[in-house]
Amino acid sequence: MHAANIAAHPRAALAMVYDIHAPSAGEVGDAHGVKVADSPETVFSSGDVDAVLIATATPTHADYIEAAVAAGKPVLCEKPIDLSLARVNACAEKVADKGVPVQIGFNRRFDPGHRAARDAVVAGEIGELHQVIITSRDPGMPPRAYYEEAGGLFRDMVIHDFDLARFMLGEEPTQVFAVGGRLIDPALMDELDDYDTSMVIVRTASGKQCHINTSRTSTFGYDQRVELLGETGMVQSLNRKPTEVRKFGASAVERAEPYLEFFIERYREAFDAEVDAFVDALENGTPVQASFEDGRRALILAEAAMLSAREGRFVSVDEVK
Amino acid sequence: MHAANIAAHPRAALAMVYDIHAPSAGEVGDAHGVKVADSPETVFSSGDVDAVLIATATPTHADYIEAAVAAGKPVLCEKPIDLSLARVNACAEKVADKGVPVQIGFNRRFDPGHRAARDAVVAGEIGELHQVIITSRDPGMPPRAYYEEAGGLFRDMVIHDFDLARFMLGEEPTQVFAVGGRLIDPALMDELDDYDTSMVIVRTASGKQCHINTSRTSTFGYDQRVELLGETGMVQSLNRKPTEVRKFGASAVERAEPYLEFFIERYREAFDAEVDAFVDALENGTPVQASFEDGRRALILAEAAMLSAREGRFVSVDEVK
Amino acid sequence: MHAANIAAHPRAALAMVYDIHAPSAGEVGDAHGVKVADSPETVFSSGDVDAVLIATATPTHADYIEAAVAAGKPVLCEKPIDLSLARVNACAEKVADKGVPVQIGFNRRFDPGHRAARDAVVAGEIGELHQVIITSRDPGMPPRAYYEEAGGLFRDMVIHDFDLARFMLGEEPTQVFAVGGRLIDPALMDELDDYDTSMVIVRTASGKQCHINTSRTSTFGYDQRVELLGETGMVQSLNRKPTEVRKFGASAVERAEPYLEFFIERYREAFDAEVDAFVDALENGTPVQASFEDGRRALILAEAAMLSAREGRFVSVDEVK
Amino acid sequence: MHAANIAAHPRAALAMVYDIHAPSAGEVGDAHGVKVADSPETVFSSGDVDAVLIATATPTHADYIEAAVAAGKPVLCEKPIDLSLARVNACAEKVADKGVPVQIGFNRRFDPGHRAARDAVVAGEIGELHQVIITSRDPGMPPRAYYEEAGGLFRDMVIHDFDLARFMLGEEPTQVFAVGGRLIDPALMDELDDYDTSMVIVRTASGKQCHINTSRTSTFGYDQRVELLGETGMVQSLNRKPTEVRKFGASAVERAEPYLEFFIERYREAFDAEVDAFVDALENGTPVQASFEDGRRALILAEAAMLSAREGRFVSVDEVK
Repeated sequence: MHAANIAAHPRAALAMVYDIHAPSAGEVGDAHGVKVADSPETVFSSGDVDAVLIATATPTHADYIEAAVAAGKPVLCEKPIDLSLARVNACAEKVADKGVPVQIGFNRRFDPGHRAARDAVVAGEIGELHQVIITSRDPGMPPRAYYEEAGGLFRDMVIHDFDLARFMLGEEPTQVFAVGGRLIDPALMDELDDYDTSMVIVRTASGKQCHINTSRTSTFGYDQRVELLGETGMVQSLNRKPTEVRKFGASAVERAEPYLEFFIERYREAFDAEVDAFVDALENGTPVQASFEDGRRALILAEAAMLSAREGRFVSVDEVK
Repeated sequence: MHAANIAAHPRAALAMVYDIHAPSAGEVGDAHGVKVADSPETVFSSGDVDAVLIATATPTHADYIEAAVAAGKPVLCEKPIDLSLARVNACAEKVADKGVPVQIGFNRRFDPGHRAARDAVVAGEIGELHQVIITSRDPGMPPRAYYEEAGGLFRDMVIHDFDLARFMLGEEPTQVFAVGGRLIDPALMDELDDYDTSMVIVRTASGKQCHINTSRTSTFGYDQRVELLGETGMVQSLNRKPTEVRKFGASAVERAEPYLEFFIERYREAFDAEVDAFVDALENGTPVQASFEDGRRALILAEAAMLSAREGRFVSVDEVK
Repeated sequence: MHAANIAAHPRAALAMVYDIHAPSAGEVGDAHGVKVADSPETVFSSGDVDAVLIATATPTHADYIEAAVAAGKPVLCEKPIDLSLARVNACAEKVADKGVPVQIGFNRRFDPGHRAARDAVVAGEIGELHQVIITSRDPGMPPRAYYEEAGGLFRDMVIHDFDLARFMLGEEPTQVFAVGGRLIDPALMDELDDYDTSMVIVRTASGKQCHINTSRTSTFGYDQRVELLGETGMVQSLNRKPTEVRKFGASAVERAEPYLEFFIERYREAFDAEVDAFVDALENGTPVQASFEDGRRALILAEAAMLSAREGRFVSVDEVK
Repeated sequence: MHAANIAAHPRAALAMVYDIHAPSAGEVGDAHGVKVADSPETVFSSGDVDAVLIATATPTHADYIEAAVAAGKPVLCEKPIDLSLARVNACAEKVADKGVPVQIGFNRRFDPGHRAARDAVVAGEIGELHQVIITSRDPGMPPRAYYEEAGGLFRDMVIHDFDLARFMLGEEPTQVFAVGGRLIDPALMDELDDYDTSMVIVRTASGKQCHINTSRTSTFGYDQRVELLGETGMVQSLNRKPTEVRKFGASAVERAEPYLEFFIERYREAFDAEVDAFVDALENGTPVQASFEDGRRALILAEAAMLSAREGRFVSVDEVK
């Protein structure tokens, strides 16, 4: 998906591709008529490459970020940076102060709807922000193999919402409370010691409140909503439908098709805007809009949530930093 | 329904009831603890009666209006005044200049939504009004006996929409085009020489355009909508649902319950407001808001529509006046 | 309001009224043409009174419930039963096993929309219930005097939502986490040691999750929503608008009027249904639908929330029982 | 726009471009790295060209269609074929029976929403179709020069809706009634003997009814809606918004951004689907989905509407064929 996005993007060009599974790389390279690198190093050292997009398995992210930054190549890396906060902190030290932009793939910040909602707050349209409610439900349970690598619900899925929470709140969360549930597939979740359903409350130093509810299954499409309550009004960024068709009959009215199924469809514009923002940062030397530090902060919140879910208490972000 | 409405209305009291079918009158009288008159004359001559509401069979309306006005009793009469324009014109002569208020039961003018839509136009919220679109679909076909008395689709059902069109347009229609269809029960409509489906276009002297579409059947509830397009915006008054419940599942999202079924539920507030306005007129001597002349004008438009549907041409309102 | 509701209700009649402020009682008595009692005891001992509705100041509720039950009069009492759980428990002992119905005024259970949402769950329309999200925001801050009597945000306002949570969950919450905020009027809230904004998470023994967000101010009308997520679908009961008018212009489309302002308008049908259900219980000897125990349970949850907000931890309901 | 669409389309490639204004062609050719033809003939005779898309000035359409077909090149041509029905009929004779596909650019048929609405009818979801209501309002008045070439409201703008009407009705209209208005810029419309606002009623042989309302100005975005009423239900294809953001404040709730501004945004997917369908026809030899005959039929309806608006009568389609 990322290769196709870059190839089709008006401000970017696909230079080469690499994949640990060589046939996959070959297919993508052929499809877009670009060179297939035989190793990551080939990519990092190539003069034809202005920047790299890392969408490999999570355990490789930090290594590749370090290698790319060492080679002076700006990076757009999929979240999470790593499942280990210690590894992320070590990586942070290596990439800091190198002047090489690193952007993390928190696509939801770039969604035109979510962005417009945040813009309305910044523009003062709802006065001081009081409450943020984020709904984040995937259309269905991923295959078992996925869970085994993903690092658990909070670091895999809710991490997106923690980033979105920080983006919407406009200030740093200081405390996290989380409840994890095993409601969809209790046996599997017990076995993996993971959750399929969760509720979170986050609070900032100034007292702003944020709630996140998450589920691994939403039969009616990808459920991705943000609600912002302020002293003078409210803004919502709601789900998107494939068309604006409405049906009316004896049993129901105003029936619409299920929501756009998953992130590729739902956040299509967001992926383009993400690349756009990355190109902006490279061309103008402006800061990236979802930085390495944003990636680190979201992981800290996920860690805090895991601790909170385990211990049943409001966890201070400082405890896990 | 009307007796119960008046009995429950905070500004009106039910004094007595009359019905040609004595047992019905008896039942209603008992239910509300009021006297049952043995003839219409008893009502018109009673000192206990300040005003009369006429909801009898259509052919009796004009006679009763004349009798009530002669007795100095203000009248709130159900539409239509009569199926014959000649009879209406004769009645008009008798009730004119008597100083006795006569209000016609065009309840839709009093619906809070339709009223707010019209108010927005009057307040200049959409600039000069250009187009009015009225959708008016009954939930189902009435029994055969009803058709035989009703005077045809245009005089029975669309007459309400003609009144609403005049109310919304804020000026007098000068030309009418109508198409009648036999789509729901062609055999019955052929036999009765009537229509179950229609489309109308009305134009005013200043060029404003109004479309009315009508059907005797709408399986999803009573379909009652008004759309007003102006030079700077648009206002819609849409259908009403019993609750704001929405359902989401694998086959559809945002499903709502069918719309309020029929006029008693849909226009409940309108019936109250209609009585309110009538009491206002009586107490303050202000003009009624749906006058005898409004009733006559709506009938003229219905007659023009019938002529148009027959002859397939734009009929001037002057032809049938 | 309650006197007028009962007077207008088709299945109830107003027999007499009492108010500690005699002129108020006089006014209401005059308005409805009923006797004004000179003391609560007169009401409880009157042969004309089949049942009593208690809508007095909170500290009098428990005493009056006890007196009414002792006199064999069924009671419909406004929430909360008392601000002290000890007092409620004492009252519970006195009214238990007397066979005299006591219904608590949790009107939201009777709202047609909320009720239809719950019915959909019971009917299996969304499979097993996983998450409940309740939004509950009052249109504006009450006067200072109100706060001083109200017992704090959780016992005054969120108690309604705790009852609704129990109603929607269909099983007993076992743990409560709450955050209180001072965002609207921090100075006043500091002074009163109260909150104007809150977020709550509740969990049941089977792992169901419920979130409640509350604010003392919602500039766009009374914000009262319930969302129920199940394994196969979702149901929402959304806010109600005065009309279905929508406005469209150069700066925005589909604009609607602010939501119904407050509980008297928003829950009008609910108040009627509440009285209806009470009459049902009296006439048929069936259990009341919002019982004394429901009132006690909601207070326990409010107490647990207060403790949680103070101590920043997931509080077990057993701790405060 | 068309060149960029084809260049970006996964199933098409831009081979060369021609424009009577050479610098424009040069720019587009450079942008896409393709050859710029020095004459239309170069295009028609080129072995590199599998098919041509004609988006030149209307008076050239018929000539180019004839030339392309003579050269055996399939054609996708913008509407209208020509403003003169005689010229269209002459062209029809030349291109008939040549086995060279000619598709007309009626993009609305390919809109996913409109298409899904039609599909629902075909699938029997609303039973027998009774009424079609098409709303078609451009966001603003075009420049004066545009009007002078456009051939009048009915042949320029409503022609799209006539095609959509035929597509939705699923059978041939037999009669047309139209009213033209001069409400937005009466002076200009008088001078040009044109209309800026119209209402149309179309009827088919089986009695189906279709209403089209049109305006040259809709301040709230491009207003493009279709409503289909059938014996058992209704389907609507409604306007599209840039995002699903909703705003709530003291003066209004559920405010959304204005609708997508104009055809390039609103019908973006439709343009892609149109090219897709054209490629399908070429690759599989199946009939095109908006044929030359469809273009001719829409023009006949536009002519009938012009005659109707002039003479104030229901015009039979046979009169202008």
